[in-house]
Amino acid sequence: MSHPFYYFYTMGYSSKLIERTVEEFSKLPSIGKKSAFRLVLHLINQDKAYTDRFIDAIQQMKEHLKECSTCYNLSDNETCAICANPARKKTVLCVVETVRDVIAIEETEQYHGTYHVLGGVISPLEGVGAEDVKIPELIERVKSQGVTELIMALSPTIEGDTTIFYISKKVQDLGVSITTLSRGVAFGSELEYTDEFTLGRSLVARVPYNQGSIK
Amino acid sequence: MSHPFYYFYTMGYSSKLIERTVEEFSKLPSIGKKSAFRLVLHLINQDKAYTDRFIDAIQQMKEHLKECSTCYNLSDNETCAICANPARKKTVLCVVETVRDVIAIEETEQYHGTYHVLGGVISPLEGVGAEDVKIPELIERVKSQGVTELIMALSPTIEGDTTIFYISKKVQDLGVSITTLSRGVAFGSELEYTDEFTLGRSLVARVPYNQGSIK
Repeated sequence: MSHPFYYFYTMGYSSKLIERTVEEFSKLPSIGKKSAFRLVLHLINQDKAYTDRFIDAIQQMKEHLKECSTCYNLSDNETCAICANPARKKTVLCVVETVRDVIAIEETEQYHGTYHVLGGVISPLEGVGAEDVKIPELIERVKSQGVTELIMALSPTIEGDTTIFYISKKVQDLGVSITTLSRGVAFGSELEYTDEFTLGRSLVARVPYNQGSIK
Repeated sequence: MSHPFYYFYTMGYSSKLIERTVEEFSKLPSIGKKSAFRLVLHLINQDKAYTDRFIDAIQQMKEHLKECSTCYNLSDNETCAICANPARKKTVLCVVETVRDVIAIEETEQYHGTYHVLGGVISPLEGVGAEDVKIPELIERVKSQGVTELIMALSPTIEGDTTIFYISKKVQDLGVSITTLSRGVAFGSELEYTDEFTLGRSLVARVPYNQGSIK
């Protein structure tokens, strides 16, 4: 009894070109062999201009996409559109783990400050220390940029709490108030999957950080 | 109240490069904006060699993929691997609608003849006539290639039945026996979604075509 996709590897399929493209597509997250094949057939059936646009978008993005030198968000330029926007408050920083979280918060349309993308959280178990994420850069920004508030919008996990604790210790003498998202974000959930209303409400009703009270 | 993806189009997202790539990915079938964004982030996080391989597979495929000049299956060469295989019977043709059906039948490992990919079926309602699909080419093959059996493996729909009827009329004086897939394929279902065991069994137990008996 053969595996349904046995076929692609061992039987004489009429095209190695298709087989190879299917394999590349099925490396993408949550794309199985069957879905990959359907996507590939779709590309086969489109005119060349369509796949040229598809490929060019990826190539341009890979070639020109940068990290914002201020907040480490993904950006087309040295400074991202959010940091470059004069209407966004530079003295309020929302500290997030990933670029996906920036997008989740932007979608709420409740936030008018700027961001700081850590690129991870402190995780002793996985050997991720404060220096491995953008925490030193954050502390430097707090010092140099007259930051008055840090909104700690990290996922409500042990690692997120550890990271908040560490940062709060580091900036405690710098006169910056630290707030966290209000209750409403369930413990153990991923920030990016929280619906925009819950997330927006928890931003508006953010509370002062009190070491030890976060659970 | 904004649409969750309103964001990508109107708010100052920090990257047009990402926005454009997300749009291209979300044109693919069954890929929504959110999935597209996750795929794009995945590509962003891979090294350049990974996306280069991904892009190269698509480009090579678009540039070099052909139709087999014999059976109209997709092929890397003038003649596809199935037609070029000396072990496959050239006197038995399995007539299918699409390349996906070839794959579905190959997966059963029950078939050792060759194929003829029509590229569609006759559909008076949609204005598709016999000349719009590879029916003239099929009749030519039957005449020139000494074909002894046509296995009509078309989806069991009105259009499929019409196509079988038309072809059977056209070849009735050429001494070719016409068979159809045996019962087991449910009326109105798509061939490519039929499981490989049902499909394999219905191939092995195929029955002689009797005009008017197909329902």
